[in-house]
Amino acid sequence: MKLATYKDASRDGQLVVVSRDLSVAHYATGIAGKLQQVLDDWNFMSPQLQDLYDTLNNGKARHAFPFEPARCMAPLPRAYQWADGSAFINHVELVRKARNAEVPASFYGDPLMYQGGSDDFLGPCDDVHVASEAFGIDFEAEVAVITGDVPMGASPAQALEGIRLLMLANDWSLRNLIPDELAKGFGFLQSKPATAFSPVAVTLDEVGDAWDAGRLHLTLQSTWNGRRVGLCEAGPEMTFHFGQLIAHLCKTRNVRAGSVVGSGTVSNKDWRHGYSCIAEKRAMEAIEHGKPKTAFMKYGDTIRIEARGQDGQSVFGAIDQKVVEAD
Amino acid sequence: MKLATYKDASRDGQLVVVSRDLSVAHYATGIAGKLQQVLDDWNFMSPQLQDLYDTLNNGKARHAFPFEPARCMAPLPRAYQWADGSAFINHVELVRKARNAEVPASFYGDPLMYQGGSDDFLGPCDDVHVASEAFGIDFEAEVAVITGDVPMGASPAQALEGIRLLMLANDWSLRNLIPDELAKGFGFLQSKPATAFSPVAVTLDEVGDAWDAGRLHLTLQSTWNGRRVGLCEAGPEMTFHFGQLIAHLCKTRNVRAGSVVGSGTVSNKDWRHGYSCIAEKRAMEAIEHGKPKTAFMKYGDTIRIEARGQDGQSVFGAIDQKVVEAD
Repeated sequence: MKLATYKDASRDGQLVVVSRDLSVAHYATGIAGKLQQVLDDWNFMSPQLQDLYDTLNNGKARHAFPFEPARCMAPLPRAYQWADGSAFINHVELVRKARNAEVPASFYGDPLMYQGGSDDFLGPCDDVHVASEAFGIDFEAEVAVITGDVPMGASPAQALEGIRLLMLANDWSLRNLIPDELAKGFGFLQSKPATAFSPVAVTLDEVGDAWDAGRLHLTLQSTWNGRRVGLCEAGPEMTFHFGQLIAHLCKTRNVRAGSVVGSGTVSNKDWRHGYSCIAEKRAMEAIEHGKPKTAFMKYGDTIRIEARGQDGQSVFGAIDQKVVEAD
Repeated sequence: MKLATYKDASRDGQLVVVSRDLSVAHYATGIAGKLQQVLDDWNFMSPQLQDLYDTLNNGKARHAFPFEPARCMAPLPRAYQWADGSAFINHVELVRKARNAEVPASFYGDPLMYQGGSDDFLGPCDDVHVASEAFGIDFEAEVAVITGDVPMGASPAQALEGIRLLMLANDWSLRNLIPDELAKGFGFLQSKPATAFSPVAVTLDEVGDAWDAGRLHLTLQSTWNGRRVGLCEAGPEMTFHFGQLIAHLCKTRNVRAGSVVGSGTVSNKDWRHGYSCIAEKRAMEAIEHGKPKTAFMKYGDTIRIEARGQDGQSVFGAIDQKVVEAD
């Protein structure tokens, strides 16, 4: 099934069930008002939502209305955890190669992951407010999962069982603030502003065989100012699958329901796939020509991120955002 | 007023108002069930809680019952954000001096802060489950605040206005996992297991003059296995006050209601104050004798963290935890 959260001027919005083709939606009133409630009590609530979803897809839901992604908050407008991996080691290799740095051997066995802010996620069509273009504004197209409860010490296989929903993420990054934060070693705060998520989050069955052993085998399209810049394969080159990422996260603590875990920038070795963040394009340019030439984003720039299923239909709806100057 | 959350087998527990002397409590039923609700709507709900608090302190609350810290969850059992500063630069100086490393000049103007996991906080008397003593188990006695909404770009003075509640924190650390995570630069995940908080969170007026310009001028007592090891002043040597820490956090993003921000280990230049984490004791030993001799915590060890007000009474109740082997 497909779930979204409609804006209603509250902090958590209103849960809606969305039809498979993303054409119509229906409030989940009577089942649950918020997605977090469903995640807190998944086994009880998800079958009820599934029934409503089936009714909606059959055209039998009485109070269905046209689905408008622009009215969506993030599926979880705020979450108790957001941990973002850097699971495509090619991304790390590319960025390091561009600055003649080695990739430490440990990076191939031990995932890179940072803890992000989860108190203020952006909806898929929300503007991105940035105080200065000099911060080096960049998008990062990613796949993300929302988990149920995963106990401390769970294996990657056990962790996979804890995945409830899939979505896309735009992990906004302020590149010029990253070097100083990396040097401090304490992770990212200022260089990672609010993250945006796709209009809908979907259960694993929605993507069929495209979900395989913790990887999503779909193509992530990134369109910057109307120009297609990335058609990246999200599956085969993901060095650490989602079960491994979650197991990394829960090695010394429990992961609780509603945790959001990201893949990091989707990245392919073959440059013909393009790029899922501008930092990669700049790295390619530095490797080829000695220096980057593509600038980061400016106010007014737009970025659209989407994935189509094996049937050619948009699975999650599109993240479609504009960069604007913060007040 | 003083607020706590009682265990009731739910994820968020039940909000209670606690008397000033911590002797009795009263469910906040009819006002709010959860502390997050109050933070989401502070101006409307906090006066109602204050009324109940006054009634309770006057001995007139009809359904008051004895307050038992052992029945408490963290005041916020799960939060949308936990960002922990390292605001006592003396702590950083000490640890670095012990390994003959310099403190970068930028550390005196730009706070160190990491984003922590906030999906699974520990109650004040909950056992701490750790899979191996070899992880290097350590406590960290800290002061923490819970914020309301603080908009992106707020100044330190504006950020101070966003502070709603004060509490104590025990930021459990697994010291032997830290070097590898520091080297990766992405911050702490495995080396920072679930954090514990004091039984009650209190409004600023509860501490009177001890709250001054973003610093809490009280003494933090740490008692390890029944032995007093720290009597550290939490106020004067805090290099960055809480307004500065929150302003650092909200430079590029909004900080939303219910965010928890920590001071980092409370640390004093004068070693006679003792220590608020074992890592500092080991650093002192390394500086004096060439190597550390105090071992980190073992299974069965206990740690008690408390602060007394100007009247000698416990302000927040005590964090009082035992380290146990994880299943």
